[in-house]
Amino acid sequence: MESIRIGILGYGNIGRGVELAVRQNPDMSLVGVFTRRKPERITTCFPETPVYHTDSLLDFTQNIDVLILGGGSATDLPEQSPRYARQFHIVDSFDTHSRIPEHFDACDAAAKETSHVALISTGWDPGMFSLQRLLAGCILPEGQDYTFWGKGVSQGHSDAIRRIDGVVDARQYTIPVEEALRSVRAGENPTLTTRQKHTRECYVVAAEGADRERIENQIVTMPGYFADYDTTVYFITQEELDRDHRGIPHGGFVIRTGVTGAERETRQCIEYSLHLDSNPEFTSSVLVAYARAVHRLAREGQWGAKTVFDIPPAYLSPKTGAQLRQQLL
Amino acid sequence: MESIRIGILGYGNIGRGVELAVRQNPDMSLVGVFTRRKPERITTCFPETPVYHTDSLLDFTQNIDVLILGGGSATDLPEQSPRYARQFHIVDSFDTHSRIPEHFDACDAAAKETSHVALISTGWDPGMFSLQRLLAGCILPEGQDYTFWGKGVSQGHSDAIRRIDGVVDARQYTIPVEEALRSVRAGENPTLTTRQKHTRECYVVAAEGADRERIENQIVTMPGYFADYDTTVYFITQEELDRDHRGIPHGGFVIRTGVTGAERETRQCIEYSLHLDSNPEFTSSVLVAYARAVHRLAREGQWGAKTVFDIPPAYLSPKTGAQLRQQLL
Repeated sequence: MESIRIGILGYGNIGRGVELAVRQNPDMSLVGVFTRRKPERITTCFPETPVYHTDSLLDFTQNIDVLILGGGSATDLPEQSPRYARQFHIVDSFDTHSRIPEHFDACDAAAKETSHVALISTGWDPGMFSLQRLLAGCILPEGQDYTFWGKGVSQGHSDAIRRIDGVVDARQYTIPVEEALRSVRAGENPTLTTRQKHTRECYVVAAEGADRERIENQIVTMPGYFADYDTTVYFITQEELDRDHRGIPHGGFVIRTGVTGAERETRQCIEYSLHLDSNPEFTSSVLVAYARAVHRLAREGQWGAKTVFDIPPAYLSPKTGAQLRQQLL
Repeated sequence: MESIRIGILGYGNIGRGVELAVRQNPDMSLVGVFTRRKPERITTCFPETPVYHTDSLLDFTQNIDVLILGGGSATDLPEQSPRYARQFHIVDSFDTHSRIPEHFDACDAAAKETSHVALISTGWDPGMFSLQRLLAGCILPEGQDYTFWGKGVSQGHSDAIRRIDGVVDARQYTIPVEEALRSVRAGENPTLTTRQKHTRECYVVAAEGADRERIENQIVTMPGYFADYDTTVYFITQEELDRDHRGIPHGGFVIRTGVTGAERETRQCIEYSLHLDSNPEFTSSVLVAYARAVHRLAREGQWGAKTVFDIPPAYLSPKTGAQLRQQLL
């Protein structure tokens, strides 16, 4: 079997996840991890994974079939994705929803210059959740979409707590409200406020002698992050945080309720949900599946920017069309 | 906006559902229903729907963009789909899983003769459930698939009961076993027997004076239908059946549990479920969405047989790529 040669740019949670996921796909092999840090300072999941400095990445244009970008959406990907789409077929997980159109356009222009494929904004949201919203909306054109996130760790909200004076460490969970889920599933088409959809739980390690009341108040009133939610703050020790809150679980629900029938009298409900013990490992697994599709598109001579909406599902699989029809249809 | 002109071949539950669904899609219009029965004997959902005899169908090759076939998988579609794929772009819901490969080949050969597109075996299973099995399997290559059906009416099992001597009418429900669902979701990877996955409930109207004990025994021991299940039989009146069991609800669950991580220590779970008040209306809504994709493929000059695995999801939508990226990604 031909091996799809994967390169990883950036070695954070996503980069590690991609390293792990490639190992689970026998039709792929890992060329190496490329990092801006000193390569010798990097400890990979598997000791045999080669680590190079990003400065040498362009030496590998002939050795890498698909480059998977593990950088962040704030500053890394807006610069890296268009840049490397000129040299490689790429996959990224750009997840700033409001800026996807401009990111798409930048990657599309760059990729087309040199006949490359750039699949952007994949993972689970954007990614699988987007795909489910699209499918459900096309099947039930008269209906309503609901997306809930959690229970899971929000990295951004955890960081926001850590920046408060007197906070040593923190972990924040976003939790969907059961009553809201029930109402949506029952087809009641509720109009839900931010507060009615999710609650937030914060586990906080305070510095010795810090004013806990002031910290709690600063958290629950923080605009944009917590003020619009019912937020509960628990003070715990660093030991407890490390023991009970080490993982990065996440997940969520995409639900579409709609109506069919001559009088719109028939209720139909489509629900997709994820329960993930590791958010980054799952996201990376999606990126790797889409790398396979990118490789196939590239071999067919297609190019430009793509999203999950553009990819025939069969392209994600190493199996032939005949195998898929026989085994899965 | 250009209108996609839909024809319907066959006017059973699926044909009616397609008639209803076309009305919910503003970019489509209905050319008419084609039936083997006497057109004047057909009462359509909407009085303005034209009804023609199938003998005149070939007069409409220039007026129909996509022909949706509402026939059954046992005898209608194996003959009709290849036959009409020579004259029209078609969509069918052929659902005999084991015979899909040969049906695909027959439609592929026929459609290619005259440069048509034949999208086969869509609906929800095969169809959406197949798509979810494919996506989940590609994301989590190391894992296990589970499909549960129900709670819903099984037409074939209801028919089997009606054929028993002394039975006037019957309705059978397939119900997933809660404990099995719980175990699967918990990642316990159970090996489930037929009996452990689903139970069957039968509502039976017996003829006056019929031997109910004999009927019940004939049902629960019926090989291939009920013998392998825990089956409960309730005798009710025709009035009760008509009042409480008139609908054709169905649904089900596709669950994949898998592992990621260096030691396969991380558990991930993907779940897709449908809760449908009308099985045929939902199936028809899927057929109509795929008719849009077929129309687009045809305009691009593609041809041959296709399945849900081959269709870029964006092709199901009337929206542009830019709209989809902005609104749904």
